[in-house]
Amino acid sequence: MHAERVKRFRQSLTDLGLDAGLICSDTNMFYLSGYSGISLERLIALITFSHEERTYLITPKLEKGRAEENCKLESAEIISYDDSEDPTKLLASLIEKNRATKIGVEETIQYKYVNALSKHAPGILFKPITEVLYSMRVVKSQAEIDMLKRAAEINIQVLVEAIHSVKRGVSERRLMRQIEDKAFDLGAEDVPFALVQSGRNSALPHQEPTDKVIEDGDMVVLDIGVRYGGYYSDLTRTVVCGAPSPLQTHIHNVVLEAQQKALNSIKIGVRAELIDAAARGVIAGAGFGEYFIHRTGHGLGLEVHEPPYIRAGNAEAVREGMVFTVEPGIYLPEKFGARIEDNIVVTQEGYMNLALLPKSLNIEDY
Amino acid sequence: MHAERVKRFRQSLTDLGLDAGLICSDTNMFYLSGYSGISLERLIALITFSHEERTYLITPKLEKGRAEENCKLESAEIISYDDSEDPTKLLASLIEKNRATKIGVEETIQYKYVNALSKHAPGILFKPITEVLYSMRVVKSQAEIDMLKRAAEINIQVLVEAIHSVKRGVSERRLMRQIEDKAFDLGAEDVPFALVQSGRNSALPHQEPTDKVIEDGDMVVLDIGVRYGGYYSDLTRTVVCGAPSPLQTHIHNVVLEAQQKALNSIKIGVRAELIDAAARGVIAGAGFGEYFIHRTGHGLGLEVHEPPYIRAGNAEAVREGMVFTVEPGIYLPEKFGARIEDNIVVTQEGYMNLALLPKSLNIEDY
Repeated sequence: MHAERVKRFRQSLTDLGLDAGLICSDTNMFYLSGYSGISLERLIALITFSHEERTYLITPKLEKGRAEENCKLESAEIISYDDSEDPTKLLASLIEKNRATKIGVEETIQYKYVNALSKHAPGILFKPITEVLYSMRVVKSQAEIDMLKRAAEINIQVLVEAIHSVKRGVSERRLMRQIEDKAFDLGAEDVPFALVQSGRNSALPHQEPTDKVIEDGDMVVLDIGVRYGGYYSDLTRTVVCGAPSPLQTHIHNVVLEAQQKALNSIKIGVRAELIDAAARGVIAGAGFGEYFIHRTGHGLGLEVHEPPYIRAGNAEAVREGMVFTVEPGIYLPEKFGARIEDNIVVTQEGYMNLALLPKSLNIEDY
Repeated sequence: MHAERVKRFRQSLTDLGLDAGLICSDTNMFYLSGYSGISLERLIALITFSHEERTYLITPKLEKGRAEENCKLESAEIISYDDSEDPTKLLASLIEKNRATKIGVEETIQYKYVNALSKHAPGILFKPITEVLYSMRVVKSQAEIDMLKRAAEINIQVLVEAIHSVKRGVSERRLMRQIEDKAFDLGAEDVPFALVQSGRNSALPHQEPTDKVIEDGDMVVLDIGVRYGGYYSDLTRTVVCGAPSPLQTHIHNVVLEAQQKALNSIKIGVRAELIDAAARGVIAGAGFGEYFIHRTGHGLGLEVHEPPYIRAGNAEAVREGMVFTVEPGIYLPEKFGARIEDNIVVTQEGYMNLALLPKSLNIEDY
């Protein structure tokens, strides 16, 4: 599988007239090789040349064991360096040895590596290849969808337990920790976030859990990310601790209708911006347009946010096998917010929801 | 405090002949403004111009509330954008409005932002200013040392409890979760890692905790990071579950002696590489040089790894107020590893250990 991916990647490099592809991001490295390192400030890089079968993996010495264990590419040579060596010199000498001058790089590569390589291997030209890799990754294989589905299934179990733990006097942070424990117990590899936002905090979509305790009448947004087999799920439900007020119920109903309209609009070939517009139209029509302050969704895969982005201005047509979130929300400053988020895969029939769960403000409905 | 930092930063820009400084990293943004955003793939940037008092903070709309709440700069104007806008155009127009052409950027800035700005504001030149910011941050103020000390104190309490929980049958992952819970209970803001490596896993310094359970005779490396007030501590102890073998005791003694030699060598003006050499000399002298596969230490502050790096080849002299780890280790492949790590601040008298804790293989000694 990994050898096949590298082969396709190398073909794309050739098609673009590039001599080599340099990968520094965790995700693309994992996608191509099965290995991703703990880089911190040390360089970890994979480089492959258009005209050579061999792929090189450059890692700090203290990552060597993990690289050997996890790298699935038989054709890879692992080169390790110690903390007194400059890995960009190693990389530059590989580039020069292969007489490569046109190097494809990810747009997320740090500027310092571009600078250092330009210095050590004068005359090389860089060209962005972020899109090449995303275009490989954006349509998921069945094996990838299986992972995404499993991640969503774990997420749902965690979310249901969390919803039943929403009680007066429980702190957001305590609930977050409980969510994380449960997710790990169920086999999650990582829980990048377990947002618990109650009362006014729910009006701030990125607010991390605090020591605030949940009170009667609080709107509570629960937004959980879970990784399984390298792949992410990202699900949100909004509930009320106790009996919902008329305004809470109204806002939640608008969000629910917006999400349903967006889901109904999904089919092969529809432009991403139209899915966004479907949700946005409902919310604007209800008079809350200015309080829907983010896009309707984002792709899911090896990253928790990746293409396709379901937002205004994205004319990209959705394709079978794309996986993304649908998550409209309304945030009333200083009052409360509501968001409902599902994860779907585009299918011949329209879409399949990766994990079904009620969408209700009432805790008893879960 | 933040206004003063920005003033010094702006002075450095002027001294370097730069028109503006562009900050995209969480840490420098927090250092200069008190705010750091949750960026993910969205741009969050702070820009300040040499000839203008005002500083601009560019954030996605869904971060606006947090930015307003946390930014401590009265002179800052917060500009927010929505998901259908391109923030690099906003930034480019600010740059052009201020007739700035020489822009200082951090070396960690993503290549795509450099590319986009070059496109939208043709003629601008970029110059790295990473060192400017690190040179401001590398010597800590008393207020910063207080935070680092508090982080270390929390870490020690957590570490002692973790050591007492090392028992046959406990899984590495379970112990990791317990460590994290305890740290949060004690007021930690973040626990970036809580490594528990037992038996053969201890020979891999970066190995994440697994489902392996601790067995009798296992060497167990516990390496914990804790953040408080934005500042990190990073402490390691190595213990044995049960009675240590002669080889385990020998290796631990060598590491202990190496660490003590390194600590003894610390004084104002000594070159970082000599502190590394002090530790390395002991380990090499005992015949284990090839198994000490990382540097002796790294700086601590807003990042868990930052300058000064205590490694071969770093001729930088240590200064009063620098804070760094001292953490030699020996890793015998397929057998076990040992590491002992303290956090120190350089003082007039030599150094002060931020948190004292026994250094013993025997759990009963803690």
